[in-house]
Amino acid sequence: MATTQTPPNHYDIVIVGAGPVGLMLSTCLARWGYKIKHVDDRAEPTPTGRADGIQPRSLDLLRNMGLKSAIMAHKPARVYEVAFWDPPQSGKGIARTGTWASCPSFIDARYPFTTLLHQGLIERVFISDLERNGTHIQRPWTIKGFTSNEKENADYPVEVQLEHVDGTASETIRAKYLFGGEGAKSFIRDQLQIGIKHKDPIAHVWGVMDGVVKTDFPDIKMKCTIHSAHGSIMVIPREDNMVRLYIQIASSTDPDWDPRKSATECEVQESAKKILQPYRIEWERVEWYSVYPIGQGISDKYTLDHRVFLGGDACHTHSPKAGQGMNTAFLDALNLAWKLHAVESGFAKRDLLYTYEPERKNVAETLLSFDNKYAKLFSQRPPAASEVEAASERSTKAEPWEENEFVKTFKESCEFTSGYGVAYKPNNINWSPEHPAKSPHLGPDGCKLTTGRIFANADVTRVIDANVVHLEQEVPLNGSFRIFVFAGKLEKTRQSLGDLATHLASKKSFYSQFLRRDLEDVTHHEQHNPHSLLFTLCTVFAAPRNSIEITRDVPDLLARYRSHVYADDRRDRRVPEALAAAHAKMGLDEEKGGVVVVRPDGYVSCVASLVEGSGTVDALNEYFGAFCTKKLGETMAQL
Amino acid sequence: MATTQTPPNHYDIVIVGAGPVGLMLSTCLARWGYKIKHVDDRAEPTPTGRADGIQPRSLDLLRNMGLKSAIMAHKPARVYEVAFWDPPQSGKGIARTGTWASCPSFIDARYPFTTLLHQGLIERVFISDLERNGTHIQRPWTIKGFTSNEKENADYPVEVQLEHVDGTASETIRAKYLFGGEGAKSFIRDQLQIGIKHKDPIAHVWGVMDGVVKTDFPDIKMKCTIHSAHGSIMVIPREDNMVRLYIQIASSTDPDWDPRKSATECEVQESAKKILQPYRIEWERVEWYSVYPIGQGISDKYTLDHRVFLGGDACHTHSPKAGQGMNTAFLDALNLAWKLHAVESGFAKRDLLYTYEPERKNVAETLLSFDNKYAKLFSQRPPAASEVEAASERSTKAEPWEENEFVKTFKESCEFTSGYGVAYKPNNINWSPEHPAKSPHLGPDGCKLTTGRIFANADVTRVIDANVVHLEQEVPLNGSFRIFVFAGKLEKTRQSLGDLATHLASKKSFYSQFLRRDLEDVTHHEQHNPHSLLFTLCTVFAAPRNSIEITRDVPDLLARYRSHVYADDRRDRRVPEALAAAHAKMGLDEEKGGVVVVRPDGYVSCVASLVEGSGTVDALNEYFGAFCTKKLGETMAQL
Repeated sequence: MATTQTPPNHYDIVIVGAGPVGLMLSTCLARWGYKIKHVDDRAEPTPTGRADGIQPRSLDLLRNMGLKSAIMAHKPARVYEVAFWDPPQSGKGIARTGTWASCPSFIDARYPFTTLLHQGLIERVFISDLERNGTHIQRPWTIKGFTSNEKENADYPVEVQLEHVDGTASETIRAKYLFGGEGAKSFIRDQLQIGIKHKDPIAHVWGVMDGVVKTDFPDIKMKCTIHSAHGSIMVIPREDNMVRLYIQIASSTDPDWDPRKSATECEVQESAKKILQPYRIEWERVEWYSVYPIGQGISDKYTLDHRVFLGGDACHTHSPKAGQGMNTAFLDALNLAWKLHAVESGFAKRDLLYTYEPERKNVAETLLSFDNKYAKLFSQRPPAASEVEAASERSTKAEPWEENEFVKTFKESCEFTSGYGVAYKPNNINWSPEHPAKSPHLGPDGCKLTTGRIFANADVTRVIDANVVHLEQEVPLNGSFRIFVFAGKLEKTRQSLGDLATHLASKKSFYSQFLRRDLEDVTHHEQHNPHSLLFTLCTVFAAPRNSIEITRDVPDLLARYRSHVYADDRRDRRVPEALAAAHAKMGLDEEKGGVVVVRPDGYVSCVASLVEGSGTVDALNEYFGAFCTKKLGETMAQL
Repeated sequence: MATTQTPPNHYDIVIVGAGPVGLMLSTCLARWGYKIKHVDDRAEPTPTGRADGIQPRSLDLLRNMGLKSAIMAHKPARVYEVAFWDPPQSGKGIARTGTWASCPSFIDARYPFTTLLHQGLIERVFISDLERNGTHIQRPWTIKGFTSNEKENADYPVEVQLEHVDGTASETIRAKYLFGGEGAKSFIRDQLQIGIKHKDPIAHVWGVMDGVVKTDFPDIKMKCTIHSAHGSIMVIPREDNMVRLYIQIASSTDPDWDPRKSATECEVQESAKKILQPYRIEWERVEWYSVYPIGQGISDKYTLDHRVFLGGDACHTHSPKAGQGMNTAFLDALNLAWKLHAVESGFAKRDLLYTYEPERKNVAETLLSFDNKYAKLFSQRPPAASEVEAASERSTKAEPWEENEFVKTFKESCEFTSGYGVAYKPNNINWSPEHPAKSPHLGPDGCKLTTGRIFANADVTRVIDANVVHLEQEVPLNGSFRIFVFAGKLEKTRQSLGDLATHLASKKSFYSQFLRRDLEDVTHHEQHNPHSLLFTLCTVFAAPRNSIEITRDVPDLLARYRSHVYADDRRDRRVPEALAAAHAKMGLDEEKGGVVVVRPDGYVSCVASLVEGSGTVDALNEYFGAFCTKKLGETMAQL
């Protein structure tokens, strides 16, 4: 909610750092109407180098924000496969030992590739969006100090001192929250005296070079991992004919390990030339070159008081090999953003914020441990061709491989690096049998969705305009829970669908308890939030589009979301036999339907059966009642 | 070629009018380095209204130009289906009688929908591109007179007088060509005393209204044709919640026909309200309202001397119903653009330009006659459900319907309105057995491509970076002929592929006769035109990507186009059994391969067998020899 009547030096949030994590948080909150003070100590966005890999899941997210086309307009490189090069069994030099899909087909991704683009260009796409929403980044400004005390000031407990980097100006402001997205050397983390744990004790010094080369190395446009007698290189293609090379300069496993070891641009190029033999490589231009030591680390805490939060590199540093930095940062910010919104809009209890750290810290830990496990497994022996095939393809003969450690680890690793492996554990938002909501209608049998994991992809036909759309993208990133009513076959579910609408409309439902304050003034063109800023409702029928008549078949409350009524009438190659492929992918019976609640960040939070009577809404009241601020429903009173 | 050393008042071309046809021509020629004087008598691009339908084929073209994403960024409406509403068999008002795909699945379209966007926004996308290429439109300026006389000045035969619309400034310039894209009331056409023929003697007065409405009419987001006892309306959805309504105000078939009959905005709204009963409609905002008489007409000539050309609405006017104006204009301009380029770059004989008028006039005539035929057929009786199904779907049971006039006409009509029906007749560029090139290797048996029609769509995997790409989009609109070498199975075609390269490289080949003048200075990053500005070569193997090694498998000349080497290893639902789907769609034998020559505008111009020895290049030398300026090959000498 916009807090327009606050004093000028009072903000909803102060965000320090305008890298990926700060920009994602700021962009979300600015769209949802929050008053933001966003500072960055650099005069300009990242000019060269830095993180540049956008994973498949992140591209989904950017599309959901309407930012994907602006990113793609820069013509980024797309990595579909990774090539492995090793010393040949006989002879000198290097030889390709195999290529693997970077996002294999067993992952149901809309964009099965990694997108490579200069971080500064990505940042500028966010900055433009921020500016359209009235938030400007104050540069070059930095944080000098802060305090947080809810007892002193319950509404604006955080006081922050900001200063121009040249010391010529300063200001002290108050905020509800402070967010540290300042990178690995976080001032805020240091002030909070939060330590960093290193998952893997091995540290490395990396040289990284972006440039334009002339080479006869055939895979220069592919992502490559190259091991040779002269050392190792990673090749990553970039936009504008550029290529990034990562060269390991030193490792803490070296006998003469020196974390301050360095190498000149020229030395690294000479080293690369040796490693790539028998191929030639010459540099036409070097855009950026840097040497930095890096270890995998995770900060002990992401917050101490749920007012001052950390995210992105301030919380976790990765090996650049995994290409995870920006993607993990985006998801940290998104996770926090919707929770702040849910709390500040009066919907969720404050302890919803307590889920930020465990959810995101667990993801960072899992990511790092898989990265290590995978690297170790890979270093033991090169995989056999049959293992590669089993790991890359969605095979019906998968069973015999399930026990194979390599195949298993590779698959899990792919899921994680593509971004689809994120699995938030059960808690008050991610329903499980241990959740306070005990309705028998929650977690219906046969459902293939897993709470805490991303909502499945599905093509459907929008009824009002016959457009073929991606169901999972239909609700924009508006901070609302997405409630997908899979209504199955109309003739079977007419009663239960009507009952669902009736009970949603009843005064004590989760839906009716959080209506918009400006309900009377909402334009009839509003598509996503006509009644509530916290929920968007979608209805999907297992029927051909032309058989659905919204005014006849859809109860009024659901029909108000007229651009969110869909026909599940598109074929899907993953369920080729299914006539209603979306229902089939979700594992929801066409005869019965079901209701899927998806968190504002796109993760499934709970699934309920669609039943006649009040059961479905009762179940959802129980579910939302576990973390919302109001007492819901009648059944709650009886419990 | 850029003519940089010409006097300041000398231009390659003067283009009058900056609507779709003028902008497409200007954009192509500016990209290819021509010096352009482009004037328009309006101070600004189209502010409201006008044409706004981009057909599927036009979207392919815009994508090929790199302009699609800028168009789609405006979030245009997409029309997938057309709904028909008629008076119900019993009772009052209107009822939906059916909905039909606007681009049915029997058409192999990448984008099976019509894109609706305000013409001014589309124009601005072109104008931005023009400005990036150094061409600025001079506004508001108009043409006052011109002469064209090759005898007087062979290089710059056209003299043009231009004037600021307020008469305060004027200039006289010389040019090689003059293009009239001024719309239906063309000054240039009038000066040339070229008449207009009306295909259909029936004229209409249309009212057209763009606005934002509030209605319970369920298909307001669909394209609808509505007939009622109170009159007829056509509904077309637009961006930004707008809708366009076309209302027929008068027809020359009316007993009291008056071509000057008009109607106020209010009258049209009242009329619409009656027609839409029992549904309600209210206007929240009217963006644009206009009444204009229109008849279908085609100008007798598109040029008199092949120096002064006409295109777009200056040559043909359509009923707005067909939504063809902008699309036909684009293709007029594209057709002329590459031919001008081929002549001015010294590649083609001047008489290549003689093909502009017959190719484009025939398309306009065919379009109009189908439009009439379809309208008549439809007005006789509503089609039966079974006919609709047969017409809309790609059915294996198509045979029994082939004789059905309605199904046949509907299918043909869909092909035309989607833009895929364009079929240029045989001539010197579109090979047929009557072509001067008589090589037995031309027009191989089994080939499914038709010369003069658009090149087929196919997904392939690019070898160097494993990107899955759309083959037909891989060569940008660079003014070059696209030569697709379908190399089949490597082990079968190694000799013939090598021979092809050898003979392409021989001094007298079409390829070697038109090398770049700056051949030595071309950067190794050049992807599309490393050797010649007139040809881009692509090589497609019927093999999995990871089995292809460019340096080993591709002859040097073809390997120089290293980003244009592809693996035909993707499945296609249209040829589900084929392992090499692209070869299968083209109808080229995997054991033998074949060479497909595609015109710079995307239409197939000739297909040759891939054979050992000089046969394939001999055949192509014969083909290109029919219209190029140099004597080609050895076989030509023997003829």
